[in-house]
Amino acid sequence: MVTLNVSGKRLLDSLDRLATFGGRPDGGVDRLAGSAADLQARLWMAEHLGSHGLESWTDEVGNVFGHAPGVRDGRLLLGSHTDTVPAGGRLDGAYGVMAAMEVLTTLHEHGHPAARSVEIVSFWDEEGAQPESSGGMVGSTALCQSPHLAVIDSYIELHIEQGPRMERMGQELCVVDGIVGVDRHLIRVVGEPNHAGTTPFPLRRDAGRALVRTAAVVQDLLRSVHDTVVGNIGSLSLDPGAPNVVPGAAQMVLEIRAPHEQSLTRCAELVLDHAEAFAEEEGCTVEQRLLSHKPVVEFDDGMRTLLEKVALSTGRPTGSLYSYAGHDAGVLSAHVPTGMIFVPSAQGVSHSPREHTPDHLLVQGAQVLLEAVIAHVESRAVADSSGSASGTAHAGA
Amino acid sequence: MVTLNVSGKRLLDSLDRLATFGGRPDGGVDRLAGSAADLQARLWMAEHLGSHGLESWTDEVGNVFGHAPGVRDGRLLLGSHTDTVPAGGRLDGAYGVMAAMEVLTTLHEHGHPAARSVEIVSFWDEEGAQPESSGGMVGSTALCQSPHLAVIDSYIELHIEQGPRMERMGQELCVVDGIVGVDRHLIRVVGEPNHAGTTPFPLRRDAGRALVRTAAVVQDLLRSVHDTVVGNIGSLSLDPGAPNVVPGAAQMVLEIRAPHEQSLTRCAELVLDHAEAFAEEEGCTVEQRLLSHKPVVEFDDGMRTLLEKVALSTGRPTGSLYSYAGHDAGVLSAHVPTGMIFVPSAQGVSHSPREHTPDHLLVQGAQVLLEAVIAHVESRAVADSSGSASGTAHAGA
Repeated sequence: MVTLNVSGKRLLDSLDRLATFGGRPDGGVDRLAGSAADLQARLWMAEHLGSHGLESWTDEVGNVFGHAPGVRDGRLLLGSHTDTVPAGGRLDGAYGVMAAMEVLTTLHEHGHPAARSVEIVSFWDEEGAQPESSGGMVGSTALCQSPHLAVIDSYIELHIEQGPRMERMGQELCVVDGIVGVDRHLIRVVGEPNHAGTTPFPLRRDAGRALVRTAAVVQDLLRSVHDTVVGNIGSLSLDPGAPNVVPGAAQMVLEIRAPHEQSLTRCAELVLDHAEAFAEEEGCTVEQRLLSHKPVVEFDDGMRTLLEKVALSTGRPTGSLYSYAGHDAGVLSAHVPTGMIFVPSAQGVSHSPREHTPDHLLVQGAQVLLEAVIAHVESRAVADSSGSASGTAHAGA
Repeated sequence: MVTLNVSGKRLLDSLDRLATFGGRPDGGVDRLAGSAADLQARLWMAEHLGSHGLESWTDEVGNVFGHAPGVRDGRLLLGSHTDTVPAGGRLDGAYGVMAAMEVLTTLHEHGHPAARSVEIVSFWDEEGAQPESSGGMVGSTALCQSPHLAVIDSYIELHIEQGPRMERMGQELCVVDGIVGVDRHLIRVVGEPNHAGTTPFPLRRDAGRALVRTAAVVQDLLRSVHDTVVGNIGSLSLDPGAPNVVPGAAQMVLEIRAPHEQSLTRCAELVLDHAEAFAEEEGCTVEQRLLSHKPVVEFDDGMRTLLEKVALSTGRPTGSLYSYAGHDAGVLSAHVPTGMIFVPSAQGVSHSPREHTPDHLLVQGAQVLLEAVIAHVESRAVADSSGSASGTAHAGA
């Protein structure tokens, strides 16, 4: 078996070119889904594929697909998204799409048989950053509800970590075990508004005090459940919000992320127990509402094993982790075997013009993707020839 | 000396009539300064004075004054305000003005010599509840900057307590020692905004957490300084305020009220020390700014002694306290000897349609005011005849 290599220069050039669509003077990118910059970037991607002898098409929602002529069903889908948050970075999503394009181009130009088993995609509106967005993961969700899903039999997404864990551990590659579940709870304390001068402390029913006492211990409670749990109090308000009125009500959003469903549940119980105890001390009551629940995603075991093997074969420091941010791969994993690879983010910075990953790690990541694709397609061919009908059971493209 | 008595029926009728201006179906009053209801109430007051043979005039800012024909200089001013907060009660301010009118009417109809030493007032815009208001105490502040102040040599204000202390102590009358000082501090913690999923706890600079930890201990810190101190965190916000972003900044307004300036200072120091310690633990910094300082007001000793003597002569339970809310009397006290009397507020409720004081206590308060006026005017007359020129040194009305 001949070892193919991606073109590092072509990959980096593609990333540079893509970053010009919505490019900012500070090196960041404004390419919100549906913006002129986003649409121009998608047109450029289609043209770029064509200029390398590849075919492209765009579905009803705006997902841009590419594949080699004569593509088969039972396709391994590779990709990510090219939309950004406002003042975002040049790598989040973009890296996964450009690397997928580089892998497909490399396979195709070398006439590698795996080229016809691959499709690449730039999903529509992963970020959900526009006010009118339905909340992100729009394109991947639409694909999973469309007839085209029938010809996709697996998915691999390459992405920057967007956090500091890999850099701190000295890892150059990570196989992603899954995506943490995310619960958001609205916790509201109800007391009684009162004159902040004439009402002595013992006669108050200070909803604000009950809530801040709770908020102050949230981190300790979450840490006590499991060291893989993170959470946040990012939104908190007091009613009526005047300096001279004892808050009659107060509310916050508790966000919890954990790789185990039982951790999510236990954390919420603990915080609510404390909120109720503090509220009782302050003469208040507590209301709680689950605003949203994103279940824990576990990626496919076979895919994880394959990606791990390829990553380790580089001889470079590798690891595994759960993603604490959501990805299109989380959507796909409910439908087809899905895997995900991370490369490090310098200082953990993402959703920022300062987003950065060294070039050699970007190229190495794309090379691992290429080798994983070949290994996956070949392993499936072996499985097919040994009797399994997977990959040929679907209708023609 | 014949003992005069106020007409309880006339006082309560006046309060009922005044409550029709801006009256609400729930028993409360909407009579914001400058509203049609406020202006109509002031016109009615002027007419009412005239119908009892008294004279009235309105100054440039809208203060309505009343006095008997032939009023002398060196006047004892009695009054309060007739404007309300939105959805306010029928007694806050209104009681003091209607009681002053009843006292003057009683003195005048009995031909009592003290009648010509009294002026009454309904101050303009004490509440400062309109957005365009310069902040309350507008009329009393204007009076103290006007030439008319030259003919005023003292001030007494009768008011409802607006708090629960008297009711809890079983007191029917209180002489007010002074008005607590009020400091407002803006406390802002600055950290770094970050992705709430991908940023592990130890790498965060969570401004929100540093601030809520501080807010959670404010009440304990204030209580540790002196049991006369109260304070409030009524306004608190996190930036950028999104559930999935670690707060990069957070701010709150700390309001402190205390009858001693050193308590105000000590409380602010303590809270700031704790804010800085918590901020350091969270990798954040603290900024502090004094938004406003209202100094402690101490009412005139002679006036307090006189009011105490008259209150005790009722044989009813009396006490003394500091007011934890601001009053026009606080403005006047910087210029002329000033005193203040409180009657209880049922359940401490004020600035609410549920504001209430039993009728017999309202009448008793007005009677004490009448007797205090007579005692004050007579004591001054004695002082004058024994050589002091106070009260005759001013120009004619």
